[in-house]
Amino acid sequence: MAASGPLSGIVVLDLTRVLAGPYCTMILCDLGARVIKLERPPGGDDARRIGPFIAGESAYFASLNRGKESIALDLESEPDREIFEALLSRADVLVENFRPGVMERLGYGWDALHARHPRLIYAATSGFGQTGPYANRPAYDVVVQGMGGIMSLTGQPGDVPTRVGTSVGDLTAGLFTTIGVNAALYHRALTGEGQKIDVAMLDCQVAILENAIARYQATGEVPGPLGSRHPSITPFGAFATRDGFIVIAAGNDTLFGELCRCLGRPELVQRAEFSNNPARTAHEALLREEIEAALARRDGADWLAELERAGIPCGPINDVAAVLSDPQVQARNMVVRVEDATGEGLELAGNPIKLSAFPDPETRPAIPALDGARQALLAELEQDEA
Amino acid sequence: MAASGPLSGIVVLDLTRVLAGPYCTMILCDLGARVIKLERPPGGDDARRIGPFIAGESAYFASLNRGKESIALDLESEPDREIFEALLSRADVLVENFRPGVMERLGYGWDALHARHPRLIYAATSGFGQTGPYANRPAYDVVVQGMGGIMSLTGQPGDVPTRVGTSVGDLTAGLFTTIGVNAALYHRALTGEGQKIDVAMLDCQVAILENAIARYQATGEVPGPLGSRHPSITPFGAFATRDGFIVIAAGNDTLFGELCRCLGRPELVQRAEFSNNPARTAHEALLREEIEAALARRDGADWLAELERAGIPCGPINDVAAVLSDPQVQARNMVVRVEDATGEGLELAGNPIKLSAFPDPETRPAIPALDGARQALLAELEQDEA
Repeated sequence: MAASGPLSGIVVLDLTRVLAGPYCTMILCDLGARVIKLERPPGGDDARRIGPFIAGESAYFASLNRGKESIALDLESEPDREIFEALLSRADVLVENFRPGVMERLGYGWDALHARHPRLIYAATSGFGQTGPYANRPAYDVVVQGMGGIMSLTGQPGDVPTRVGTSVGDLTAGLFTTIGVNAALYHRALTGEGQKIDVAMLDCQVAILENAIARYQATGEVPGPLGSRHPSITPFGAFATRDGFIVIAAGNDTLFGELCRCLGRPELVQRAEFSNNPARTAHEALLREEIEAALARRDGADWLAELERAGIPCGPINDVAAVLSDPQVQARNMVVRVEDATGEGLELAGNPIKLSAFPDPETRPAIPALDGARQALLAELEQDEA
Repeated sequence: MAASGPLSGIVVLDLTRVLAGPYCTMILCDLGARVIKLERPPGGDDARRIGPFIAGESAYFASLNRGKESIALDLESEPDREIFEALLSRADVLVENFRPGVMERLGYGWDALHARHPRLIYAATSGFGQTGPYANRPAYDVVVQGMGGIMSLTGQPGDVPTRVGTSVGDLTAGLFTTIGVNAALYHRALTGEGQKIDVAMLDCQVAILENAIARYQATGEVPGPLGSRHPSITPFGAFATRDGFIVIAAGNDTLFGELCRCLGRPELVQRAEFSNNPARTAHEALLREEIEAALARRDGADWLAELERAGIPCGPINDVAAVLSDPQVQARNMVVRVEDATGEGLELAGNPIKLSAFPDPETRPAIPALDGARQALLAELEQDEA
């Protein structure tokens, strides 16, 4: 069963596969919605066959589908269409991430559904959107990371192209779709009217380019990759210490003065090249040399302890193991336990939206077996009709 | 004035500065909410002093605050507190991204506000959240990118640490906060009850680690950076052609067979090392050599035309200039025009949430001058009281 949350009572029919769509419906589930995942027989969601596997079950699939209920339905078979339509008449939201046109060919396009179910909210997430010259092209995360500009901003200068190490092309599309679904639910609560939400992975990449678009227009220069630097704040980035890199971000004159004092180099603030943030940004390489020469005297952990005491924004570069055991991450319940096929349970990311009116449970319901909810769902539908 | 949208009629008091909070309230604005930006005198939002500048105005600030109304209020001065409280009694949502405790010291903590304004939704975005051992630490984007694990996954193997080239630490916190605000609005529409939303930048980094957490548990190996590769799908990434890199993602056997045919190397599918996706992932370097040897015969644009015809997911690695002029980006209205101080206008990212019930205008209202809405707001408050 779903957790309690602001969306308790909402029923989501989830026709999505792999990543962007399932990420959206997982967040809806964390917010209390009941998510019924419709999978295509015989194999179901392709993500069930993406590694890594634990005891034969995909941990990749687990990390995106905890808490959902699965039913396998072939939308080209008449008996399964009847079940789908019975579910539809009870649903508040439908989410799909097919290529444009697939739902229309099945007879379940927005216009047809809206005519029959005027309160239904219909969310479509796709690579390029429902309109425009590329609408029918296939997309994977790296395609939209490349086309959308973020790869041109990520990496070390002069190096080969670098992808963001998680699928932000899919994930941001999932996030914007989730915003759209919630806004549409609010609108429906006022008006009774459902609507269609059309979110494209490529569009979302444009929406997260942030200051890069403004920088290009202000300077006429095309922004390139900056390693770990910031384009307009210095010092800001990863710096080498005696035993490894740490992150330091001293974003204003006060913090910079404090940093120089900690480094035993208070005179640096007097130098014209470092006198304010634009000057420091213009002389970033020189300042980095000075900072790293000072940092080389001690280990990263020592520096972090000292910089933290001085109130300077700083931190380690944690790998995934360190993240999972971090005291703050633990204290915020950002690692939740989920039952899995081994009986030992699996740790997965929690819900970052902490709400005062609802609990934030430390466990989540099990990973749905393919078609595992069929009998219960059919019994429920029969009962409703009786 | 705000655009029409599902949040039309909603009034947001926006006490946020710089990036995560303003990004959230900009999306609320794009969804139709009226956003009243409260800025601290004399200088207002720090982002007004972050470059680049166009005609003396920050283009960085412009890209996050279009369409909002600005009033400068000193919440430690009694007359300004009266104005703030008059605005509060008309507000639906308050968003702030101070460090924890600041609003309490001003007398406007959640408990006090909730007692007086039970319908008010209160959203707090911070570096580490309102609870836990690091709650009071300062954070900048690169600090949470480092601590949250994404930097350990991004970059070329063996290279120095690489930050994602846009501030995904801030942006994802803005997105999750926006989801929370919309979900809370829905809940309030049903129950009349406001609630507090607590979103931490660090938590959001954990929430976008995606399959990396599952991979670590399945294998016991700590995931590292992979350049432009995918950890479990091959071929997937950036590949060199005669004149530069293109992206190719042939995520299943059918697409891989089609790719080999296009490359003039149909026999590759017969080799045991490339016979299925796990095998290809295990022999990624070898496969990359074969693919790049074939790609070296022609230019990237030629290859993209051919691969597109064959239905293989692929694309260029666009810089920001190419993104802004891309036909699909243009067709999707993802570049909108905003009036600026020069009178020439500025191009900024549009809204990726396309809704069937509302228009998606090609322009957005002007960038707010500091305190520019004071007279109009005061007149409105007086009129309400009359």
